[in-house]
Amino acid sequence: MPLPSSRRRGMLMGMAKRGELALMSFLSILLGRPLASSEQPERKIGVFAGVPALGLDGLSSSAYGPEAALTILLPLGMSGVWYIGPITVFILLLLALLYLSYRQTIGAYPVNGGSYTVAKENLGISASLLAAAALMIDYVLTVAVGISAGVAALVSAVPSLHKYTLPMCMVILLLITLANLRGTKEAGWVFAAPTYLFIGTLGCVLITGILKAIASGGQPQPLVAPPPVSEATETVGLWLLLRSFASGCTAMTGVEAVSNGVSAFKDPTVRFARRTLTVIVVILAMLLGGISYLAQSYHVGAMDQNQPGYQSVLSQLTAAVVGRGWLYYVTIGSVLTVLCLSANTSFVDFPRLCRLVAGDDFMPRSFAVFGRRLVYSVGILFLAASAGVLLFAFDGITDRLIPLFAVGAFTAFTLSQAGMVVHWRKVLRDPRHRTSQNKASNVEQAGVNQPEEAGSRGHVLVRMVVNAVGGTATGMALAIILAAKFLEGAWITIVAVPVMLTFFNLIQRHYRQEQVQTGAPGPLRLSHNEPPVVVMPIRAWDRVAGKSLRFAMRLSPDVIALHLSHLSGDADDDARDTIQQQWSRDVAEPARQAGLPAPRLEVVNSPYRTLVEPLLAEIGRIETEFPHRIIAVIVPMLIQKHWWQWILHTRRAIKLRAALMQKEDSRVVVISVPWYLHD
Amino acid sequence: MPLPSSRRRGMLMGMAKRGELALMSFLSILLGRPLASSEQPERKIGVFAGVPALGLDGLSSSAYGPEAALTILLPLGMSGVWYIGPITVFILLLLALLYLSYRQTIGAYPVNGGSYTVAKENLGISASLLAAAALMIDYVLTVAVGISAGVAALVSAVPSLHKYTLPMCMVILLLITLANLRGTKEAGWVFAAPTYLFIGTLGCVLITGILKAIASGGQPQPLVAPPPVSEATETVGLWLLLRSFASGCTAMTGVEAVSNGVSAFKDPTVRFARRTLTVIVVILAMLLGGISYLAQSYHVGAMDQNQPGYQSVLSQLTAAVVGRGWLYYVTIGSVLTVLCLSANTSFVDFPRLCRLVAGDDFMPRSFAVFGRRLVYSVGILFLAASAGVLLFAFDGITDRLIPLFAVGAFTAFTLSQAGMVVHWRKVLRDPRHRTSQNKASNVEQAGVNQPEEAGSRGHVLVRMVVNAVGGTATGMALAIILAAKFLEGAWITIVAVPVMLTFFNLIQRHYRQEQVQTGAPGPLRLSHNEPPVVVMPIRAWDRVAGKSLRFAMRLSPDVIALHLSHLSGDADDDARDTIQQQWSRDVAEPARQAGLPAPRLEVVNSPYRTLVEPLLAEIGRIETEFPHRIIAVIVPMLIQKHWWQWILHTRRAIKLRAALMQKEDSRVVVISVPWYLHD
Repeated sequence: MPLPSSRRRGMLMGMAKRGELALMSFLSILLGRPLASSEQPERKIGVFAGVPALGLDGLSSSAYGPEAALTILLPLGMSGVWYIGPITVFILLLLALLYLSYRQTIGAYPVNGGSYTVAKENLGISASLLAAAALMIDYVLTVAVGISAGVAALVSAVPSLHKYTLPMCMVILLLITLANLRGTKEAGWVFAAPTYLFIGTLGCVLITGILKAIASGGQPQPLVAPPPVSEATETVGLWLLLRSFASGCTAMTGVEAVSNGVSAFKDPTVRFARRTLTVIVVILAMLLGGISYLAQSYHVGAMDQNQPGYQSVLSQLTAAVVGRGWLYYVTIGSVLTVLCLSANTSFVDFPRLCRLVAGDDFMPRSFAVFGRRLVYSVGILFLAASAGVLLFAFDGITDRLIPLFAVGAFTAFTLSQAGMVVHWRKVLRDPRHRTSQNKASNVEQAGVNQPEEAGSRGHVLVRMVVNAVGGTATGMALAIILAAKFLEGAWITIVAVPVMLTFFNLIQRHYRQEQVQTGAPGPLRLSHNEPPVVVMPIRAWDRVAGKSLRFAMRLSPDVIALHLSHLSGDADDDARDTIQQQWSRDVAEPARQAGLPAPRLEVVNSPYRTLVEPLLAEIGRIETEFPHRIIAVIVPMLIQKHWWQWILHTRRAIKLRAALMQKEDSRVVVISVPWYLHD
Repeated sequence: MPLPSSRRRGMLMGMAKRGELALMSFLSILLGRPLASSEQPERKIGVFAGVPALGLDGLSSSAYGPEAALTILLPLGMSGVWYIGPITVFILLLLALLYLSYRQTIGAYPVNGGSYTVAKENLGISASLLAAAALMIDYVLTVAVGISAGVAALVSAVPSLHKYTLPMCMVILLLITLANLRGTKEAGWVFAAPTYLFIGTLGCVLITGILKAIASGGQPQPLVAPPPVSEATETVGLWLLLRSFASGCTAMTGVEAVSNGVSAFKDPTVRFARRTLTVIVVILAMLLGGISYLAQSYHVGAMDQNQPGYQSVLSQLTAAVVGRGWLYYVTIGSVLTVLCLSANTSFVDFPRLCRLVAGDDFMPRSFAVFGRRLVYSVGILFLAASAGVLLFAFDGITDRLIPLFAVGAFTAFTLSQAGMVVHWRKVLRDPRHRTSQNKASNVEQAGVNQPEEAGSRGHVLVRMVVNAVGGTATGMALAIILAAKFLEGAWITIVAVPVMLTFFNLIQRHYRQEQVQTGAPGPLRLSHNEPPVVVMPIRAWDRVAGKSLRFAMRLSPDVIALHLSHLSGDADDDARDTIQQQWSRDVAEPARQAGLPAPRLEVVNSPYRTLVEPLLAEIGRIETEFPHRIIAVIVPMLIQKHWWQWILHTRRAIKLRAALMQKEDSRVVVISVPWYLHD
């Protein structure tokens, strides 16, 4: 009997009925239609989409990195502005080391070469979890800092918006979250325009400024003179320069994004990922170099952000080079936008990192589930919630969040490069060893991308040295950052990391326990498989009970119906007598005639008018009567069609089922027999 | 194999584990231990506890009834104060009629003689539902008005508390709710002291005043002179006197409480109920008479509550008779307390009325369920919530609530007495007719209390006349109240009543549908009872699957395991091959050796990474393959022991079970097989 097609369609729809249908179509408008697993390759990105998607964070760092370094140099007065030159050279050197290191990482770990993977395969699981925790904290902070810095700049420009700081932060967070829930590709396009506008306008300003500086023999005349740099109050010292360098290193945060997000690229992923990394790092280096050169040429120093009349270094520079015309406003506008949107990098990488960690059972499995749009929705939502809590807790004020920042990034840098050193040592010892352990990260393209050839022994040695030098440098930078920022907020990271590590380990212990207890059952045992004893609570002899009983008698010769008397507190002896008479007439007699064992009816008193407790006690008694047998409890359920019917019934059947499942008694099985009312 | 006793106790406790245990002991502290049904008679009340429990509302009405009448008489000046005398005489006459009527009702309907029951048995179900709706509205208003009036008076005395008006209302509401959830008897005791203090002090003041007035020949000298009565601005007219009478009738609200609450009394209930009613009405009549006599003697008029320096009539009177000493403050204090606590009458009666209506299937059944303390907890909570919403919506301000008040009470009075007239007419026509239809209200003492003898034909005629006169009078009062207060708020009741009636009828229709569709199954049919087709979703071949499969194969020879591939979006062809190999080796082979039909394994692709939809589609296909057979879906469930484990698992099993139950397919049955992890 084939079902009518409308019925069939109804089945395919499954839960998608009424309320859920409305919810689903709402989600479809908000997030787009569900994507099938087979549609996955479409969603991959190339270089043009990759630069905004994975580089926004790194590039926007140029807006605050040089300024942070100049701020530390403030006490040196005009000579401090000169020192930004050599410090930037060191920062660019470190950036170059990081670039080479991550290029190598992308080649060696084409599936996902984030710090977590590299550290796991070379330094062990503890180091990798440390890297993961550090990165996660950094991602959350990137979101919170990016959004709050953007909103704070906007608020400085339009002071009347000041009282809406926190709501504006939350709205921006919501919009970014939605864009990312729709999927990486859309997110890339949404963010491409401001990113390229930022690169274009700031590039224009810098090139114009440099040409003017060269033309004037290094002494250009500013169109709008920057405020004079304050007098020197200290003389130069190594510790001050080191602190300035450490602060300037915040300009590098976000560079690791590409290596974590390799799997977001289309084939050939390694080539696209490397090109994207190159583009990002080159642009970043040019921006940093240009800014520090012009700061020297135009005598632009940092200003105290707490004083009225504060202007950022970029604002002073742009005004000096092109004046306060339309280009100034477009440039500053794009800086603001990019700061706000830099959060997006975290939204691309954080869920992928969580998926890797969850794949190793250190995080809840829901982080590894692909959502309707082929993104890890749980990770995106978790990141949004964490950043929202941070923004709420710190009232959306950037200054308080900044000191927590960069600790995580440099921890991950250092661990990643230490891991790469170990990796190359392994390759040196055994040339066939080419990251063949890279199987734990069984992401979609496993097997498609092969790690590139390691090359000759000399090549490998050079690579090892590159990583060793880079790791030492970032490690030193990390030590300086921790020392300089400990009391200002770095301690929060120091506290948070062990807490996260503890959770990771507890979660893995739980999953391992589960696996040990449920795994490897061996061949099916079919001996001693006696029929279950079927127990059925019965309120009255009605059709619901009839359907359940018919089913029960097919399952087992031992059927026991339990009737609770005095359930409503009344003296309902009549009801008890009625059901006993009906039972012998309508159940026991037909069973006897059919030659089947008659089901038993037991009447149980409920002194406290409760359903669950007396039934559980009686089922316990039946368990002692039938040792070694499964007790199958049939719970007849009247299924409500409309939400309002929910309030018309006492949900005793559902309570009973929940209590039976929570009984921690593996001999009890619950059979829900539904009964549907027609309208 | 008997179970160890500790295990047994665990079973008896049922769901009472961990969190729920903590919740239960918290409830025990808050509400007292659960009471067994057999403990019920203990909780019955006598006259001493009955007067506060059921009379507080009626008695406290004397604090605002005379004042409401005097307020209408304000335009008449000094002569208005004189008219309070004749108006009070009419009010007392009406009160006497009501008293006689309700005495007769208690005798004729000893189980529960509220307006609902009387109207139902004599005027039909529509009239009774109208009475029920009117009464329910009145009960909710009594709570809101009582609490807000008490708090408003307290705030007038201590102006610094003014800003806490709404929170204080809510706290008082909460305390009254808790007291009532503990049970009627405790509630009676909690409220007895203030009630008797109110009666005692106000009685003292009135008697002292009357003695002084008589001693001085009707012209007593006030100790504190009341403010002079304002000049007359109108001359007397019938409409003004009628409106004054209608407003004064608010003094009678709450008199019906005893007849609604007869079942709260101990045996013999009729005698205790009548005595309580007599005590309440006599005291109320004396208070009303005393107040109006003294108002005349001491020339006390109403004052405008909106003007500064306002004093209530009771405050003026008390100060005039006994001065502003300690007795004044104790008297006014007890008035305030009693106003606040008058809400308690509704808490006793509202749940009982709901229980009666729910017993006739016009309200959700949960209203008819006895809670842990043998009170109808759902009704108590519903009343508290409704009153809370009203207080919140009207900011706890009495003046806006008062006009809604009394409409409900007089509707119920009128319907009740009309019903009694019809009742006596039935008795006249058929003397054997003695409310024998009183079987719908199958409350606990049904059969214990017999309605009293109707007496001779003359007696019955007199009773009929009493009810007819009373009904006509309350009907006229109702018409006047509606006309005078329509725009001020009475319209809200006019709107609310039909809405409630609609809900009553929709609810009853649902229950009737359910009864028709589930009732009367007749003898059990055992023909064509084929074994079910057992369908089992399987994630991997583990012990959970092994346990479920063992059980499945005992239930039926037709077992189909469904494995969803590509569930995580990855290309998990390996996983599919693995399970297929394990199946043929560990399942099919042992089954063949045991001579049993081998269970089938079907692999289903899930293109959208969803569990529910492909499984439902496949189950639909299986239904067409096996027409007329029950499809039993086994859902293996990993049961979480700790709340935090909840976040570690995707709740797919629970979602699947819910979807299957909502499938509206009566051929599908769900078997939940639990699996418990040890620590």
